[in-house]
Amino acid sequence: MTASRERIVVLGADAAGMSAAHQALRMASSQGREIEVVAIERSSFTSYSACGLPYWVAGEVESYDELVARSPERHRAMGIDLRTGTTATGVDLDRRSVCVEDERGAEWIDFDQLVVATGASPVMPDWAKGPEGRLIRGIAALKDPDDGRRWIERLRAPEPGGGRSPLVIAGGGYIGVEMAEAALARGWPVVLITRTRVMSGMEPAMSERIADTLRAAGVTVIAGDPVVSVSSDGTGAVSSVRTSAGETVDCSAVLVAMGVRANVGFLGEGFPRLGPSGALVPDARGELLPGVWAAGDCCESLHRVSGQSVHVPLGTHANKQGRVVGTNLMGGTARFEGVLGTGISRFDGGGEVYVEMAKTGLSVSEAERAGFEPIELSTEGRTASGYMEASAPIAVSVIADRGSRRLLGAQIAGGRQAAKRIDTVAASLWGHLTVDDLAAMDLAYAPPFATVWEAVQLAARRLADRMS
Amino acid sequence: MTASRERIVVLGADAAGMSAAHQALRMASSQGREIEVVAIERSSFTSYSACGLPYWVAGEVESYDELVARSPERHRAMGIDLRTGTTATGVDLDRRSVCVEDERGAEWIDFDQLVVATGASPVMPDWAKGPEGRLIRGIAALKDPDDGRRWIERLRAPEPGGGRSPLVIAGGGYIGVEMAEAALARGWPVVLITRTRVMSGMEPAMSERIADTLRAAGVTVIAGDPVVSVSSDGTGAVSSVRTSAGETVDCSAVLVAMGVRANVGFLGEGFPRLGPSGALVPDARGELLPGVWAAGDCCESLHRVSGQSVHVPLGTHANKQGRVVGTNLMGGTARFEGVLGTGISRFDGGGEVYVEMAKTGLSVSEAERAGFEPIELSTEGRTASGYMEASAPIAVSVIADRGSRRLLGAQIAGGRQAAKRIDTVAASLWGHLTVDDLAAMDLAYAPPFATVWEAVQLAARRLADRMS
Repeated sequence: MTASRERIVVLGADAAGMSAAHQALRMASSQGREIEVVAIERSSFTSYSACGLPYWVAGEVESYDELVARSPERHRAMGIDLRTGTTATGVDLDRRSVCVEDERGAEWIDFDQLVVATGASPVMPDWAKGPEGRLIRGIAALKDPDDGRRWIERLRAPEPGGGRSPLVIAGGGYIGVEMAEAALARGWPVVLITRTRVMSGMEPAMSERIADTLRAAGVTVIAGDPVVSVSSDGTGAVSSVRTSAGETVDCSAVLVAMGVRANVGFLGEGFPRLGPSGALVPDARGELLPGVWAAGDCCESLHRVSGQSVHVPLGTHANKQGRVVGTNLMGGTARFEGVLGTGISRFDGGGEVYVEMAKTGLSVSEAERAGFEPIELSTEGRTASGYMEASAPIAVSVIADRGSRRLLGAQIAGGRQAAKRIDTVAASLWGHLTVDDLAAMDLAYAPPFATVWEAVQLAARRLADRMS
Repeated sequence: MTASRERIVVLGADAAGMSAAHQALRMASSQGREIEVVAIERSSFTSYSACGLPYWVAGEVESYDELVARSPERHRAMGIDLRTGTTATGVDLDRRSVCVEDERGAEWIDFDQLVVATGASPVMPDWAKGPEGRLIRGIAALKDPDDGRRWIERLRAPEPGGGRSPLVIAGGGYIGVEMAEAALARGWPVVLITRTRVMSGMEPAMSERIADTLRAAGVTVIAGDPVVSVSSDGTGAVSSVRTSAGETVDCSAVLVAMGVRANVGFLGEGFPRLGPSGALVPDARGELLPGVWAAGDCCESLHRVSGQSVHVPLGTHANKQGRVVGTNLMGGTARFEGVLGTGISRFDGGGEVYVEMAKTGLSVSEAERAGFEPIELSTEGRTASGYMEASAPIAVSVIADRGSRRLLGAQIAGGRQAAKRIDTVAASLWGHLTVDDLAAMDLAYAPPFATVWEAVQLAARRLADRMS
């Protein structure tokens, strides 16, 4: 190590941080420069698929190792000074130094450039915590592999007395729905309790369709009535939850899946460039302050349809943002071009009890809040020609702005092979296309793959007609 | 019937013609106008899924009725004066009259407006015909339900002597590949013979991947060596084919799948607005001459990427063009906005011997011919996260213009759920997006549906990098 090597300190060694680190190393190598990359990671894990955790808990993925894109050893072998089990506790911007702590104590590490990629942590409501502020036993989120391992243990263990008291899932978003699938696959009864609706970012009819499929699989869905308190048994473990309407649900465990919040507290009060969600707001190059960068779940992003700064913590964005930051760290000129709020998932309750769901762009209410005049239309179609074996139902909701006819968003709920066609709309939104463009475009048709008027396009055509 | 009703004569009662007819009736009804729609159809069939025929022949679709969107009776009940078994034999543009013939003789029908939607017919090479110009017994195409019925009979019938002499398929395009699947499903040996390559509109590596899958299913693929002659047995039925390289292949039947040609001969020599393929070239409104319209497989269309007039006979375009014409017939202002050359199919040889294929936009050679400077890159990816059961291989080829970075096309070959993501690129092409746009856009990711860098996007990103 020479004193002249530029030192880049990366806080967080998952998708965003490690994408930045490796991209910087690649750029440095192609420039013939030597740099030092120090990566600080609180946990013992790096570069794993957080989105894969529910499928590991379900048993569809056999081992955690399958979820690991790059192990700590691999990162080290590739030239990163990776320090796991180490937490960043403060940043001194004037001294350009970051304070980190591990089990041996605290240390200040000077940096030439800093990448903040500390991710986000589950929001834990007050009712989940006991008097000392610690989580009540039996209540947990699903954020990292340790959580995953604990849920596998819990869902594997037989209940005392034989019968199983349900798993309560507090939250009806992607993780809630995916973990409902996982718990059912493990033979557990599930009660899903959500403040508003299942998949509340989607239109009410879509939401209801998904809730119906959960119910058909045996999930008890309590919507519009959030958990407000819990009771514990004699051992201090959770034994029931109580909803705002006063309903009491006995349970043996509670999964909290109520969203996440950016891990930025260590930056201290008064740290600049925090957005409405409390996450960081770097510019399109990923820069927060000169030589201080941010990427991934700890950041907000520009929503390309609404123009607003939004917190959409997803691995896809983290990878792209990390790459952008890594390029710019080394003097490149990459930009992160924003998000559309695209998401996809499924609920597989076994056999025909199956629904795929996807969304891109704005919902009607989001569009209204962003100042558009949205008009929405939903259609029912099929994923393939009705005479083909693969034909499954698909509901498509398309939303456009009345005045400009610009597409604002779309949602899909349907059977197998329904949801991924949301990308057709995502590409259309990316290109600022109108509902007429989507109705006219040349999409792929053959009987095993679509109907002759492709379902997404049919919805667009009908909406275009209605707007004429 | 009153003399004052406007009479629209529609030639051809399949997708394009009947879309035009019904759209005109809807428009007329909403305008409070009465019109007379006379539809002339050579066959006894209307509005059936030609694309579904191979799956009916394969036995995946049980009955022809399932392929019928609207029967002749249904069209008549909806107010169309439909005359099946009737052929248009000439048009007198000055008298505004069309000559039609049925088994009872010829008749001139006057029109106020005329819609030419006569479709296209299979190209039959000279070697398929006997001395009197009639097809040799055992040689046929697959164009309409009569063909389908004959192929079902033939592929069902046991061969004399027990063993089955192969079905030769002459042509390696969509129909050739789909009928190879169908014949295998019926237990027939298949030899596929093609002038250039299997799926020759795709890049050579894609083409080879598809050919390999055909071979893995037991199909003998002879590429770059077309059929040049056939021999018949004592009964006059085809018994072997001979290729240009002199190879002789014994066979009991030959499917000719060498493309189609527009049915426009009846319009007479010197009819205006014929394009390079011999098909009609209406304007974007579907109009050929004042009050004379055209739609569907008898037409060329504007290719939105190359800017050239191309013959792409597909039901998707026929439906859209018919609707456009129907709207404009009644004074509307609809436009057909062109095609991208999007296509999709599969070859299912059973179990793992399966490939999906799709294309949109231009291939490298097509792009060169259109005056671009194409650069192409192919990647191998997975359709879902590697640890998920649904994960299948996917090869993606992306093509862009070097100078402008504009996307020109893409191709996909891969396992289950690979091909339909071509629509992401189709939407991008529709919006004139660049390879950088495709690399940056917010596509749907969850482990059962994609990898975190979606396969199509990964190809675009790598191509964008290479072009930097």
